[in-house]
Amino acid sequence: MRRPLLVTRVGSVADIHAARRALAAQQVAAGGADAALITSPPNVRYLSGLVSSNMAVLLPAGGPAVLGTDSRYAAAAERDCPDVELVVERELAPALTRLAVERGYQTLAFEAQHLTVEQHSALAAQPGAPVLVPLGRVVEALRMIKDQTEISLLATACSLTDAAFGRLIEAIEPGRTERELAILLERTMVDLGADGPAFDTIVASGPHGAIPHHSPGGRRLERGDLVVIDCGARYRGYHADMTRTVCLGPPEPWQRDIYDVVAAAQLAGLAAARPGAVVGDVDAAARSIIEAAGHGAHFGHGLGHGVGLEVHEAPMLGPGRTGKLQELVPVTVEPGIYLPGKGGVRVEDTVVVRAAGPATLITTTRELLVL
Amino acid sequence: MRRPLLVTRVGSVADIHAARRALAAQQVAAGGADAALITSPPNVRYLSGLVSSNMAVLLPAGGPAVLGTDSRYAAAAERDCPDVELVVERELAPALTRLAVERGYQTLAFEAQHLTVEQHSALAAQPGAPVLVPLGRVVEALRMIKDQTEISLLATACSLTDAAFGRLIEAIEPGRTERELAILLERTMVDLGADGPAFDTIVASGPHGAIPHHSPGGRRLERGDLVVIDCGARYRGYHADMTRTVCLGPPEPWQRDIYDVVAAAQLAGLAAARPGAVVGDVDAAARSIIEAAGHGAHFGHGLGHGVGLEVHEAPMLGPGRTGKLQELVPVTVEPGIYLPGKGGVRVEDTVVVRAAGPATLITTTRELLVL
Repeated sequence: MRRPLLVTRVGSVADIHAARRALAAQQVAAGGADAALITSPPNVRYLSGLVSSNMAVLLPAGGPAVLGTDSRYAAAAERDCPDVELVVERELAPALTRLAVERGYQTLAFEAQHLTVEQHSALAAQPGAPVLVPLGRVVEALRMIKDQTEISLLATACSLTDAAFGRLIEAIEPGRTERELAILLERTMVDLGADGPAFDTIVASGPHGAIPHHSPGGRRLERGDLVVIDCGARYRGYHADMTRTVCLGPPEPWQRDIYDVVAAAQLAGLAAARPGAVVGDVDAAARSIIEAAGHGAHFGHGLGHGVGLEVHEAPMLGPGRTGKLQELVPVTVEPGIYLPGKGGVRVEDTVVVRAAGPATLITTTRELLVL
Repeated sequence: MRRPLLVTRVGSVADIHAARRALAAQQVAAGGADAALITSPPNVRYLSGLVSSNMAVLLPAGGPAVLGTDSRYAAAAERDCPDVELVVERELAPALTRLAVERGYQTLAFEAQHLTVEQHSALAAQPGAPVLVPLGRVVEALRMIKDQTEISLLATACSLTDAAFGRLIEAIEPGRTERELAILLERTMVDLGADGPAFDTIVASGPHGAIPHHSPGGRRLERGDLVVIDCGARYRGYHADMTRTVCLGPPEPWQRDIYDVVAAAQLAGLAAARPGAVVGDVDAAARSIIEAAGHGAHFGHGLGHGVGLEVHEAPMLGPGRTGKLQELVPVTVEPGIYLPGKGGVRVEDTVVVRAAGPATLITTTRELLVL
């Protein structure tokens, strides 16, 4: 239960959230709405600091915000978000919309990417309901570029991942099941100080490596297996994401071949991940190497994604995607080759886009580990 | 890593899902739509058996269904859902809607309780888009009444919870932190055979017990504490939910008083949980006892909820809620009293509504455990 890797808490957490709300409120004003109803959980957490399964924020274009949660989290909200007015209700979207009506807001922006059709209909049917207009991904756009506090938390999550993976390596041997190793890795993360795994750990051995999101099961590792391990620690809401592929014993030529192709593709993707790069071009930089090696059909997913309060968030790095990378945007770069019935390789790092080249938050070697 | 509590897998899992799809298709036909687009993850899992973070089903009123997922889960879908046609795409709602157009469906029902406003707009804007009509909670209604396979899985999840709690009891003592105990409990569940915790375990000691959804932290247990432990194991998709409150040393009179009130309220709620009972009345049966004891203001949440593929699902047992309980509906009954600054008590069981009275799936004693 030691926590050797803790980051010191920054002085004034409430100030950070207030500053974020001020930036978001500017966007609400720029969009012409009187206020925005923020319902997407990571967006609400980003703007308030609250951790709850039921929360929302009413964010006026000008003036103080209102945080909503239900009675289960009211005490936590009072403790963690002392600088915002609190509304305690079970059904938050209707409650905060009623409040918007009471305050005379004529136009209320909502998160069309999160609010359901049913919720929207209910809000629109409220007496005197404001005009509902889509807000767009205003908060997601703010979240994409991380501040130093966020980078620190993400770096800690990645350090915990590295450290746990380092211990796992010692336990990988023929006869261990995928599930045993996944559990061991996740527990080690927590013992080192993580809040938990960032997502369900993937341990895909031998032929299972051909399934990119294999669920680790009872298969026992065998000599000659390639083993794909996709894992990450979660630390104060921030998600690390790393994949390494190891080989149990000397690799066969086909295993070495696809590893080398994936490793080269990853380096090309990392080299392309600069501020100003179009995300589809970053994907293409890596994908073209895999295609040139004749494995284009064996790389069916995108190259990577943003990471932060969500393990998958903007920007998405995939074929044909538009939008450009920016300074201080953390992304994953994770090409793979998957050969049905045989096995697979994926290599993934979490890096922060910088003008000088991506700053990797993962320090585990990218070389093929032969165990 | 022993798994002593495993339930034998039923013979023909695919048949179960086919039968569920047939029932749901009848409802689609009854609603007048040509097909339904099912996007809610637990609903898709219920109808297909697939476990994926990206999946959807196109369910015609007549004829075979189509399952959609992306390349990461394609192999799993082929293995686990061999009896349905598979579409492999990243963006499933548009892809399955295009398929609906190709098949000449005029009216497509959608899950307004899950589809976002943004997704809905994109579907409606597709060339030749079918008329989109809300499906309603058709699949949720089917899911409410559990079949024997589901009851078995839920019973296993509850047995694992009981067994893990029994081991935790031996470890509870002054000086342990809430977080240590939460981690120990979750690990024990997994060691006994659970897939994982059904939700983040709550260990709320002393004054933290007044926070119904307290996040366990570094507070060390002290003699004299009431400790609220809310936990459950997840087993093959099914969620157990149990709360017990223990006392470290002989309870003070106020602790014994609120425990006795909550225990009496829980028994009253259980007694009221019969087929045909209006859910708001079940809540009232328990709540009236807490109110009569002068603690109405200290019980701010609903009495309980359905459990199954989601830890919170229909029916919700809360004040004024309508709808009736039915035979073979599993629900929680979980009254509590929360005294700010002092502490709290909650007692919760997962039970199956039966004509003969609720069948409890939790066997841990409801008596106040004095440790």
